[in-house]
Amino acid sequence: MAKQKQLKLGAIIHGVGGNVSGWRHPEAITDASVNFGFYKQQAQKAESGKFDLVFIADGLYITEKSIPHFLNRFEPITILSALASVTSHIGLVGTLSTSYSEPFTVARQFASIDLISDGRSGWNVVTSPLEGSAKNYSKAEHPSHPERYRIANEYLEVTRGLWDSWEDDAFVRDKESGVFFDPSKLHTLNHKGEYFSVQGPLNIARSRQGQPVIFQAGASEDGRAFAAKVADAIFAGHETIEEAKAYYADIKKRVASEGRNPDEVVILPGIAPIIGRTEEEAERKYQEVASLVTIDKALDYLGRFFEHHDFSQYPLDEPFPELGEFGSNSFRSGTDKIKQTAKEKNLTLRQVALSVATPRNEFTGTPEYVADRVQAWFEENAADGFIIAAALPKGLDDFVDLVVPILQERGLYRTEYEADTLRGNLGVPVPVNRYTKKAAVAAE
Amino acid sequence: MAKQKQLKLGAIIHGVGGNVSGWRHPEAITDASVNFGFYKQQAQKAESGKFDLVFIADGLYITEKSIPHFLNRFEPITILSALASVTSHIGLVGTLSTSYSEPFTVARQFASIDLISDGRSGWNVVTSPLEGSAKNYSKAEHPSHPERYRIANEYLEVTRGLWDSWEDDAFVRDKESGVFFDPSKLHTLNHKGEYFSVQGPLNIARSRQGQPVIFQAGASEDGRAFAAKVADAIFAGHETIEEAKAYYADIKKRVASEGRNPDEVVILPGIAPIIGRTEEEAERKYQEVASLVTIDKALDYLGRFFEHHDFSQYPLDEPFPELGEFGSNSFRSGTDKIKQTAKEKNLTLRQVALSVATPRNEFTGTPEYVADRVQAWFEENAADGFIIAAALPKGLDDFVDLVVPILQERGLYRTEYEADTLRGNLGVPVPVNRYTKKAAVAAE
Ligand SMILES: Cc1cc2nc3c(=O)[nH]c(=O)nc-3n(C[C@H](O)[C@H](O)[C@H](O)COP(=O)(O)O)c2cc1C
Ligand SMILES: Cc1cc2nc3c(=O)[nH]c(=O)nc-3n(C[C@H](O)[C@H](O)[C@H](O)COP(=O)(O)O)c2cc1C
Repeated sequence: MAKQKQLKLGAIIHGVGGNVSGWRHPEAITDASVNFGFYKQQAQKAESGKFDLVFIADGLYITEKSIPHFLNRFEPITILSALASVTSHIGLVGTLSTSYSEPFTVARQFASIDLISDGRSGWNVVTSPLEGSAKNYSKAEHPSHPERYRIANEYLEVTRGLWDSWEDDAFVRDKESGVFFDPSKLHTLNHKGEYFSVQGPLNIARSRQGQPVIFQAGASEDGRAFAAKVADAIFAGHETIEEAKAYYADIKKRVASEGRNPDEVVILPGIAPIIGRTEEEAERKYQEVASLVTIDKALDYLGRFFEHHDFSQYPLDEPFPELGEFGSNSFRSGTDKIKQTAKEKNLTLRQVALSVATPRNEFTGTPEYVADRVQAWFEENAADGFIIAAALPKGLDDFVDLVVPILQERGLYRTEYEADTLRGNLGVPVPVNRYTKKAAVAAE
Repeated sequence: MAKQKQLKLGAIIHGVGGNVSGWRHPEAITDASVNFGFYKQQAQKAESGKFDLVFIADGLYITEKSIPHFLNRFEPITILSALASVTSHIGLVGTLSTSYSEPFTVARQFASIDLISDGRSGWNVVTSPLEGSAKNYSKAEHPSHPERYRIANEYLEVTRGLWDSWEDDAFVRDKESGVFFDPSKLHTLNHKGEYFSVQGPLNIARSRQGQPVIFQAGASEDGRAFAAKVADAIFAGHETIEEAKAYYADIKKRVASEGRNPDEVVILPGIAPIIGRTEEEAERKYQEVASLVTIDKALDYLGRFFEHHDFSQYPLDEPFPELGEFGSNSFRSGTDKIKQTAKEKNLTLRQVALSVATPRNEFTGTPEYVADRVQAWFEENAADGFIIAAALPKGLDDFVDLVVPILQERGLYRTEYEADTLRGNLGVPVPVNRYTKKAAVAAE
């Protein structure tokens, strides 16, 4: 019997949390965002649960209204590297923006993590939604949404080219003859494009998994097109299984149109499970989280999605204000959805703000119930797996201790790592070096 | 009795080595430059020897003539972060160029290593000698030597400003009141200069040591002026104690002219000790290293200092060729010295190339002899300590096992760490946050 398809799991490690007021929870470690002990414990917990990866989110601009976790947190490249040396199998995925960085440096840093971890690095490619980022990077203005994706496309061409600078058997290292490497297996990229001119070669070789795994989370038209073209794995954010299924079908179709195998692109929605021994306990836990949020913090949080718009100027209990095109150069698909839902359900500003700050989600309940929902999304083609973004301080620990064993028992999820590279576990192929491939084709 | 002044020690970890052919040594690990096990072993060895720091060098441009270590090595930010989680007391210092990076990102990454390691990060600020770097960074040309130092000066203003974004007591984290931080202790830099416009604030706070330790290795007039102004510690490269004493006196004078305390800037020449049980064994070890270098590799290596100049076009056994101004926009002080020595000693090209590839140095001999030389340099004000750049695969291990105990016995060197931050061990002060200082002055 062929082995049943297995679901994939990742864990966002995000310090005091993605929630505005999660740090106020009685069990929260209030300096978690800059507490290495916390990051290490979470990564090792995820690894004990045989997770495919841990994920580090990122942003490049704060104001005093930013949520606590954004104000003071580890930078992704550094924290992933630090986790590499205290873990052995789990993938290490971090966010880095193509709008405010240099491809030579970024290619090197992810390649270096890939070698330090022996084939476990991944890069979540983002284009930076926050307009203010430009002000921290000596730029006159934040590039428009379509331009950010044009930059990102060229950027990925460059980094992938640089990663192939050295063929896998380039290093001879023969002490006797004094030959360290074979010069015919070192390649200079000579990229000259619209945004970048990068000669190469890169001063670091490929790891066992060939290239770092590319993650993407684009939700807009441009974002989806980009993801379908370059991503090995895709993060998504959905509230309902219907939304998730539509997104899943759309992305897999786009991947196929790119001439790629849809099974080799893994779609992972982010979910924030709340697990209780009983349904009532789970509901009580949700209420506890929601009660920590004050309305003014919720308004600040909402504002961030709309270029730090000040929502305190509107009446709280009247319909959500008319904002027109406002917010569309930032988190476009997110802001569109907020506006649309507000209109459809006729919500007040207060309702919108509180629901954005602590969204309810269907992964709330007993371990069996949460496992059922995971299985349903997985089997109904809404997801190939999930990224766990814990809403509670012990949320990841609960998922690993209580839900993972059920998924394992049902044969949906590994009990041992199949591989010790990230590509190996995710089941996405090792890209053959472009120059080796060319030579192989020429030889046929 | 006042405690005797103690010398400081660092170790360059540089994979297969700074030597052109060191990887061919029988004991060499030939993939050491991308072998995390090797880096971890070396860092832990240095820590067992109570070293102040490990140091990672860097460069941004290679050609097929680059020395083996430069072709394929870990990137400094990543390897330092990975070492942070497997060490506890030793400082973690890495090279990063101000000519090809963004201050917001670099300030963040070093600050993040500083928090991950709980106060042990250091940044060796370089301006990138290699012209070719421009080609990897979409730049039309490599900035001139004086311009690189103008950029570096402004760059440091920005990063130091960003590091002070958060005062040390900014984070209240009071669950009861819901106050996460005190907004009056968050500061926006609003830097607008000739090269950079950076608003801030930085999205990461200061560590226990205030700011990452600034290292510098400038040897030219501009380089020394810069080091005297900004550095907490200075790397130097000297062949003789006379040179080292002159440099030491010059730098300490410049530091004083900047209104800084010369005792709070630590000068650390790089040395490459070769240790044998007897004098003859040490000499044999040197000859073994030297014999691994072939003349064509030595010419390639020499070429790198002169903008990858092709020295194979000149006769080997005639006087070193006349190069005029050539090479002065790259490793200026290094190339000037090579030209000058060649002229003074009337050396042939072969002699110059071989001596640059495997320089002889006076730290070659028995453990007692090497300890004597270390003591002499230290006591005669040629150095406040040293960076050990091992010329042999087991060079660091030998120094730690054989020389360190002698230095400890003589009361010149610690037997236990005095502190667990890098500033604490180096004896350089924690910089008071600029805004806290301003407030303190205003209150007087
Ligand atoms: C699970 C998930 C994680 C994300 N993480 C980040 C992140 O760390 N940093 C970031 O700037 N954006 C992040 N995003 C946002 C995406 O980069 C993207 O901006 C967003 O999905 C909107 O899509 P669009 O760019 O196609 O409009 C994330 C999105 C999802 C669904
Ligand atoms: C011990 C030591 C280590 C150095 N490490 C680096 C390095 O890692 N990367 C680099 O580009 N330059 C390095 N340099 C070179 C200096 O950055 C500088 O270019 C050189 O000392 C010439 O000085 P100048 O810039 O004042 O002309 C090092 C120099 C010394 C003495």
